[in-house]
Amino acid sequence: MVNVITRITRAEPADIERLGQFTAATIHEAQGRRGAIASHIKPIDPETSFVGSACTVVCAPRDNLMLQIAIHYAQPGDVLVVAAGEYSEAGMFGDVLGNACKSKGIAALVTDAGVRDTRELRELGLPVFSGSVSIKGTVKETLGSINHEIVFGGELIRPGDIIKGDADGVVLVRREEVAEVAELSARRDEHEAELIRKYWAGGTTIELCNLTEVLRSKGLTSDIDAVVL
Amino acid sequence: MVNVITRITRAEPADIERLGQFTAATIHEAQGRRGAIASHIKPIDPETSFVGSACTVVCAPRDNLMLQIAIHYAQPGDVLVVAAGEYSEAGMFGDVLGNACKSKGIAALVTDAGVRDTRELRELGLPVFSGSVSIKGTVKETLGSINHEIVFGGELIRPGDIIKGDADGVVLVRREEVAEVAELSARRDEHEAELIRKYWAGGTTIELCNLTEVLRSKGLTSDIDAVVL
Amino acid sequence: MVNVITRITRAEPADIERLGQFTAATIHEAQGRRGAIASHIKPIDPETSFVGSACTVVCAPRDNLMLQIAIHYAQPGDVLVVAAGEYSEAGMFGDVLGNACKSKGIAALVTDAGVRDTRELRELGLPVFSGSVSIKGTVKETLGSINHEIVFGGELIRPGDIIKGDADGVVLVRREEVAEVAELSARRDEHEAELIRKYWAGGTTIELCNLTEVLRSKGLTSDIDAVVL
Amino acid sequence: MVNVITRITRAEPADIERLGQFTAATIHEAQGRRGAIASHIKPIDPETSFVGSACTVVCAPRDNLMLQIAIHYAQPGDVLVVAAGEYSEAGMFGDVLGNACKSKGIAALVTDAGVRDTRELRELGLPVFSGSVSIKGTVKETLGSINHEIVFGGELIRPGDIIKGDADGVVLVRREEVAEVAELSARRDEHEAELIRKYWAGGTTIELCNLTEVLRSKGLTSDIDAVVL
Amino acid sequence: MVNVITRITRAEPADIERLGQFTAATIHEAQGRRGAIASHIKPIDPETSFVGSACTVVCAPRDNLMLQIAIHYAQPGDVLVVAAGEYSEAGMFGDVLGNACKSKGIAALVTDAGVRDTRELRELGLPVFSGSVSIKGTVKETLGSINHEIVFGGELIRPGDIIKGDADGVVLVRREEVAEVAELSARRDEHEAELIRKYWAGGTTIELCNLTEVLRSKGLTSDIDAVVL
Amino acid sequence: MVNVITRITRAEPADIERLGQFTAATIHEAQGRRGAIASHIKPIDPETSFVGSACTVVCAPRDNLMLQIAIHYAQPGDVLVVAAGEYSEAGMFGDVLGNACKSKGIAALVTDAGVRDTRELRELGLPVFSGSVSIKGTVKETLGSINHEIVFGGELIRPGDIIKGDADGVVLVRREEVAEVAELSARRDEHEAELIRKYWAGGTTIELCNLTEVLRSKGLTSDIDAVVL
Repeated sequence: MVNVITRITRAEPADIERLGQFTAATIHEAQGRRGAIASHIKPIDPETSFVGSACTVVCAPRDNLMLQIAIHYAQPGDVLVVAAGEYSEAGMFGDVLGNACKSKGIAALVTDAGVRDTRELRELGLPVFSGSVSIKGTVKETLGSINHEIVFGGELIRPGDIIKGDADGVVLVRREEVAEVAELSARRDEHEAELIRKYWAGGTTIELCNLTEVLRSKGLTSDIDAVVL
Repeated sequence: MVNVITRITRAEPADIERLGQFTAATIHEAQGRRGAIASHIKPIDPETSFVGSACTVVCAPRDNLMLQIAIHYAQPGDVLVVAAGEYSEAGMFGDVLGNACKSKGIAALVTDAGVRDTRELRELGLPVFSGSVSIKGTVKETLGSINHEIVFGGELIRPGDIIKGDADGVVLVRREEVAEVAELSARRDEHEAELIRKYWAGGTTIELCNLTEVLRSKGLTSDIDAVVL
Repeated sequence: MVNVITRITRAEPADIERLGQFTAATIHEAQGRRGAIASHIKPIDPETSFVGSACTVVCAPRDNLMLQIAIHYAQPGDVLVVAAGEYSEAGMFGDVLGNACKSKGIAALVTDAGVRDTRELRELGLPVFSGSVSIKGTVKETLGSINHEIVFGGELIRPGDIIKGDADGVVLVRREEVAEVAELSARRDEHEAELIRKYWAGGTTIELCNLTEVLRSKGLTSDIDAVVL
Repeated sequence: MVNVITRITRAEPADIERLGQFTAATIHEAQGRRGAIASHIKPIDPETSFVGSACTVVCAPRDNLMLQIAIHYAQPGDVLVVAAGEYSEAGMFGDVLGNACKSKGIAALVTDAGVRDTRELRELGLPVFSGSVSIKGTVKETLGSINHEIVFGGELIRPGDIIKGDADGVVLVRREEVAEVAELSARRDEHEAELIRKYWAGGTTIELCNLTEVLRSKGLTSDIDAVVL
Repeated sequence: MVNVITRITRAEPADIERLGQFTAATIHEAQGRRGAIASHIKPIDPETSFVGSACTVVCAPRDNLMLQIAIHYAQPGDVLVVAAGEYSEAGMFGDVLGNACKSKGIAALVTDAGVRDTRELRELGLPVFSGSVSIKGTVKETLGSINHEIVFGGELIRPGDIIKGDADGVVLVRREEVAEVAELSARRDEHEAELIRKYWAGGTTIELCNLTEVLRSKGLTSDIDAVVL
Repeated sequence: MVNVITRITRAEPADIERLGQFTAATIHEAQGRRGAIASHIKPIDPETSFVGSACTVVCAPRDNLMLQIAIHYAQPGDVLVVAAGEYSEAGMFGDVLGNACKSKGIAALVTDAGVRDTRELRELGLPVFSGSVSIKGTVKETLGSINHEIVFGGELIRPGDIIKGDADGVVLVRREEVAEVAELSARRDEHEAELIRKYWAGGTTIELCNLTEVLRSKGLTSDIDAVVL
């Protein structure tokens, strides 16, 4: 097994950009409730969001050697997805590497371990999502992999798959499905906007969630003679 | 057992409103250190606070069917208290149902599971408190209960009991004690304001916490000849 | 063993102040990756930071008697470091004691348990770092210790050691090393500023992290003929 | 509120004994999936089981004063149910109090905190269920309650309710439902024995779990032309 | 997407059997430190071990419908690998389904959720590995998948891959690598037996772990003049 | 800082042996409720116990290089105390190193990380206590320290301090206090045996825990006219 794979397939930039207009929650639903990364991975700044192509990195716990190398090989628009053993007591990434990323046009960094220099990273404007914030320094000793398929936050991520993150969390879209999922997301947004209009017009959940038949078949009971559906 | 109870007793709106002026911490202390909901249930926006009558809901984990139904039956001013197995990897509630709640005048939503669309919910101005934020979608399959007594966050909540939440967390007040607890909270606030004045006037904790006698009886020792009390 | 030690050695105020100019992460690295307090202890307001001399306090879980006493004995510029069994379901400290601290010139409070009245504490401008936020009240029953050596957040803290906290977390510096660590921190900051400049000038991680020789000796492999270093 | 309630209603010993013949899992199912205590409360010896009337106790974390008092007031056949803040780093109970219980005929002890002297307690033959095992000693300082209604392991327990525990965990039965639940448990055991016989005779889950109609209505799909049901 | 895939590729029984002779830890090392399932998934009886072909199942949390169906479709020698949202408060599997499995020749069940009837399952002799033990009953409402690729315990498992479990935990081997990994495991066992012989003959870790050169290059220092290697 | 300290002070073997006769819980209480190591560090075989002098080791997470070296320098009767970042997903120690230890007369191994080969280690008869059991292999890359003071399980351990472990957990005794603590432990055992005799002779907790005066002063109340003390 080689450590570093440099030749990966990425989706079309225009498709990626379109997908990025939708929230992580919308995308997750639109593609059939798939691709949600574990919820403990959250932005250090809830105001930020990002979209980009996954550049996957596997580090040893409390060791950021492969992350340093990955920044070298990542392309503008890539999102570094760094699996480091879900070890929270390590600051794998801070403002120096943050500037290295930002100056190269890397779109964001997501890790299941910790990061630090959060104030400086916020000012830098680089979206960073992590499992923790820790000041603990790392060693640079152990080889790992770059751009291999990895399991991250409970999902299989392939290099070049699309990662979208916002205040709610992170979602994964297969690179070959980006255009389709963007389209489905747009439809879902329209549908939800329509639902919201109907609620403000007086619609009820029984009606708008189509519960009447469901509740009858499931046999919902109530303390009033007839459940008003 | 019927699933849905619609006829519940609520406290007087004026009493509820008065209680709502005090913080969750103050209310908890004022009523004798009772009613604190487990601390991991926190607001998605620490700037928000709420007060209202509990409309209790029991959902299966990662299933929001009963929550959809509860919105139908809840009354303006109610707080939806949604027990869903303390399962963090589920977004039980988002902006569409948030608009359904807001348009009906529901006061807030509190759940031991996850929610999503946090940015939209903040903009909507609906106070939402949860055990996590997760983008993961839910099914609508399993019947549960509405307005039954439930254990939630380590406390027994009866429908119609009063729930107050703010940046510090959530507290429960029995519906028949609302007026009394509001009164006790007011007195506690006055007492604390007076204490704060005394501290700024040079008072010490030994003096203002009434520790002199306590420490003598407990036998506190020090490296100086006499403990200065 | 006496409960309270009042005579402790503190570092020079000028040295403490100088140290306080650097971030917790920088200090941790500058002193050789030592002194990082466990990462779950975080500020209630990420905008705050502090530096000061540790006044160590040991409380029983959900009991703040010794904290009340410690406020009496603490000196201006001290940081109360309160070990209370890492028990999250307790609000050991709130706005009344917060005013007691602020009025005395205490620099900050750090605890492995919970605090409450977070909004009021933020307005007061007292930096407070804790393991949780909980409204649950405490008893005042059990004696403990003040200004003994304690293990806190995985580190041994001696009274008079210097504690620095900011958005990223908390670090400990031995009181006899403050001047030296401040100097090392300054050099590290300069070095990092230089690195950041070089990254924006087009430097790469391979080059600026000095990875060429490291990767050769470790035998990094790639899918391209020669790893471009 | 008085601390100690001595007069509580207990179920009939014959009914309790009959209920005790069934496992915790069977009882939980038989009474409609109610009464399961949180799963982290487990026996220190999986070979033991018990049944008895709950004598509820509320202790402060790391403080066993009320437990000592409760042993005084408990009756033969009672099960001490000790809520102590779910604090794992405390050994609330050991072999000396174990002998005090055993010599009085107390049936078992269940706590959400820790216990110690596990080897001696096993030899003594007293069933002990706890959230952890910890050698840490406790203080005896803070008053609590005995035989009040408590929330424990996520369930409301009233004094005199029946508690059954075995290798799988702990279940609660309302004291007025003991005879009925025992009867339902017996029927469930018979039903399950019959099912097991049918499985060994070649029955399938589709058939014996009555899934044919369910799967048709839910629309299960398969890679073979027709799902064989 | 169809729910159930019935046609999967399995490895040769003889190869599976040979692989089963080695421990999970040995296999993990022998195949290059790959395939270790998360460590919280453990046997309910540490005396048991198993090997077999993965039949993968995805259930909703606290819902065992798909597990019931999977038993129908599983083949003798299969291991049911049941992903159910890592939800610990559910007993997905007990002695009735255990007998259904045993009577069909299913090799074992592994789940990231809970199981119950542990004593009966031990007597039955069916190896069961789980994330927890819980008496809580499940619903049978939500469709999922059988024999799709799943992420389980942090690893991607394909149907037909080989799963081995013992007291230490669970490991995954790709179905096409079984023979090779068995061979590598045998060599590792021989090598370790040889090492153990050398340790009892007086060998040291410095010598037998080949540390002399490593420590020199890394620059290990000691309080004695020369580090004795 | 040198990595390895070889010259440490150990207590008298006769004193260590005497101390080893008492349980970890007894020792903890006898020395004034000090020295309890965090409760999640538990024996892989609850039937084992050990006592010995601490040889402290600091490893990087998922890296056992320093442990291999420590076995070289440890003396017969030493207990290896291995701090490895409390990282549970790593098997730092197995049967090969277990034989290396056993053949040298090392008394036990205690770690805050994971171990593996538990069945083989039990058969070998080497007491092993750990934070987890994991099959995951480790690297051998990062230097750490041997026989430095460390914080482990929430306590400061100095090399040469005495460590005792049994089914309940692990306790630390300062090396200069061993004889005294053994003596205090013996007295405590005698006292507890006497208490147990008194309980079986009909003594009550109120009487034998000396609660009469305590409860009067604290103001315990009851539902019966006079609390019977």
